[in-house]
Amino acid sequence: MAERDQEGKSADLLNIINGDHENRAKPVTSSLPMNGGNGIYSYSKNSYYQKQSAGVEREKIIEEIREKLDMKTHSSVSNTIRLADLGCATGQNTFRTIQTILEAMQRKYKSQISQSCPHDSDDQMPEFQVFFNDLESNDFNTLFTSLPQDRQYLAAGVPGSFHGRLFPESSIHFVHTSFSLHWLSKLPEELQNKASPAWNKGRIHYTSAPNEVIEAYACQFAEDMERFLNARAKELVPQGMMVMIMTGIPKGMPYSQIPTGMLYDSISSSLMDMAKEGIIEEGEVDSFNLAFYAASPEEMAGIVEKNGCFGIERMELTNPAAWMKGPVDIPSLVTHVRAAMEGMFSRHFGSQVMDELFGRLTHKLLDISDLINSTCQEKVQLFAVLKRK
Amino acid sequence: MAERDQEGKSADLLNIINGDHENRAKPVTSSLPMNGGNGIYSYSKNSYYQKQSAGVEREKIIEEIREKLDMKTHSSVSNTIRLADLGCATGQNTFRTIQTILEAMQRKYKSQISQSCPHDSDDQMPEFQVFFNDLESNDFNTLFTSLPQDRQYLAAGVPGSFHGRLFPESSIHFVHTSFSLHWLSKLPEELQNKASPAWNKGRIHYTSAPNEVIEAYACQFAEDMERFLNARAKELVPQGMMVMIMTGIPKGMPYSQIPTGMLYDSISSSLMDMAKEGIIEEGEVDSFNLAFYAASPEEMAGIVEKNGCFGIERMELTNPAAWMKGPVDIPSLVTHVRAAMEGMFSRHFGSQVMDELFGRLTHKLLDISDLINSTCQEKVQLFAVLKRK
Repeated sequence: MAERDQEGKSADLLNIINGDHENRAKPVTSSLPMNGGNGIYSYSKNSYYQKQSAGVEREKIIEEIREKLDMKTHSSVSNTIRLADLGCATGQNTFRTIQTILEAMQRKYKSQISQSCPHDSDDQMPEFQVFFNDLESNDFNTLFTSLPQDRQYLAAGVPGSFHGRLFPESSIHFVHTSFSLHWLSKLPEELQNKASPAWNKGRIHYTSAPNEVIEAYACQFAEDMERFLNARAKELVPQGMMVMIMTGIPKGMPYSQIPTGMLYDSISSSLMDMAKEGIIEEGEVDSFNLAFYAASPEEMAGIVEKNGCFGIERMELTNPAAWMKGPVDIPSLVTHVRAAMEGMFSRHFGSQVMDELFGRLTHKLLDISDLINSTCQEKVQLFAVLKRK
Repeated sequence: MAERDQEGKSADLLNIINGDHENRAKPVTSSLPMNGGNGIYSYSKNSYYQKQSAGVEREKIIEEIREKLDMKTHSSVSNTIRLADLGCATGQNTFRTIQTILEAMQRKYKSQISQSCPHDSDDQMPEFQVFFNDLESNDFNTLFTSLPQDRQYLAAGVPGSFHGRLFPESSIHFVHTSFSLHWLSKLPEELQNKASPAWNKGRIHYTSAPNEVIEAYACQFAEDMERFLNARAKELVPQGMMVMIMTGIPKGMPYSQIPTGMLYDSISSSLMDMAKEGIIEEGEVDSFNLAFYAASPEEMAGIVEKNGCFGIERMELTNPAAWMKGPVDIPSLVTHVRAAMEGMFSRHFGSQVMDELFGRLTHKLLDISDLINSTCQEKVQLFAVLKRK
């Protein structure tokens, strides 16, 4: 409890800034999950923002299960209900979310049974099996040794990319994925092609970039989502439910006007300052891009409809920082960003310049803290509920 | 290939000595798997003996699947076949074994389909899902990053003790467990009770011990197996198959007459020598016991029949060292033993005395190498195939 309180005091801002996604930092290409273990920059010690942010959506998930998930039909085939959390990382957030979903399912099951057989409410509760998925390089050892001792489910870990198949056909009843889908499976090649109008010189992201750069990111996101939806369409049972939470953006709003964009612009300019001072090479900045994309509800709906395997039950933007009180605590924010993103930056620029980079970032963000605070209440969290047709 | 050849040359004896079980060293109580990672004493670098030993049984497994597993019925419900390897550790052996089983199943499926529908041999092969199980403290990160890239199955890791439930009811079609079941879930308490006739003073195992000590071990083994069989009975589908490979012993043979017993006696006397010289305390030796038990086929059959949920398809002893040529290479053997057991010993006696202990052990085993070699061809590997009734 002491730790939680401490986290609360210092956590006044990341969620606002970044819609909470950095803490699930997925690799630029294929092998960089969050900082593992339990150190001061570890993900498991720095995932308070996700916890809070998840809370914003928790009630909605409970409501969707209560109103739309047919537990009786789902449990009629084998008396086993299978859940999957895709992009689970190593922290406590995945266990809290799964517990919420599980309890909502148990309540729904009981209410369905008592309606259909009022004198037989002791009907046997189904067994629950939960699959925790993340990339092969995720720290599953920490995840497994942290599993709740009193869990009411059978647990399994599934290593691999959720852009491909993970589970047998028609075997999963409920998928949850939170703060993961905005990470692209790879970077568009043209970002590094000097001859292309999509060459992303001097930037680490499509924030404040030409339209061609934005378009290249959008195409990759659509392609990734198509693969994701096709894989899940195979794996989910008919009427199986999928909850997707990720960073979003209102349709038409420039990325630079939301807190995450300000963060990325500040990292870009910190790196370019370091290049000008000879600490790193300018070409290193040109060749580094964050594989991160935020979709609008309209864009996501278009992708889902084109795929055709899922019905859209809910698709909306929310303010992930509604729980926040007072202004953003910039140093705490930077610590959270570092827990999530240091691996990517240090692999490219070298670990010796990390203190320098995150130090400069802190100063740049402090300089624009008023601007950040003024945009903190933007709705930059996409909440979607799909159902397998 | 070079590595394999090198291993082959230096590996002339562990399997003979210990029936290959130490390499799956399960914890004395609850938290000590093999040495993780890839270091010189790591399990993944020192599991050649298991590989060879597994080869001795491979053909039998293929034969059992070919003759007794009904793939058509098993795949008729959901078109998914689920396999589990219990006590998988982190090495390559589990992947080789699973590949062998998978290919045998695919052949059997094809032959069944071509018999029933000779003109429809393109019938869709079922999907395979493989669950790799070991204790929570196992190095699943190494396991997951070593998964074969070209595997034809969906993989999952399941952390937890196989003495309890791991999978949903009636969900598994085939269980394989190799060199794990001989590890007890806990040590009988009376071994450390000075007032009990089962007090195991000056020894680390029931080798060369009074009957009361042997009896205490046997009771714990029977209790563990009962829990194991009850859990598997829930999880296996009707007619599901279970292959169990573990260290065994011919009925009535004293443990001290087989190579593993000689190993344990040599460790005991090395430790007692060290106690006499003041390097460790004698009480430390008295309070340390290996939670390891080797059953005879008759004893195992009795436990399975008493449980009542399984039919016995096959129950026999084999010589795990039939592949060996030439005498045992003692230093190589000790390296293998160390890879598997160092964790247990260092937790109890301290890591600073490990070089001393394994150095003394090497000398003692060299002194009795003729005796060891003369008993190398004993049948000390138990091979059992059960089928869920």
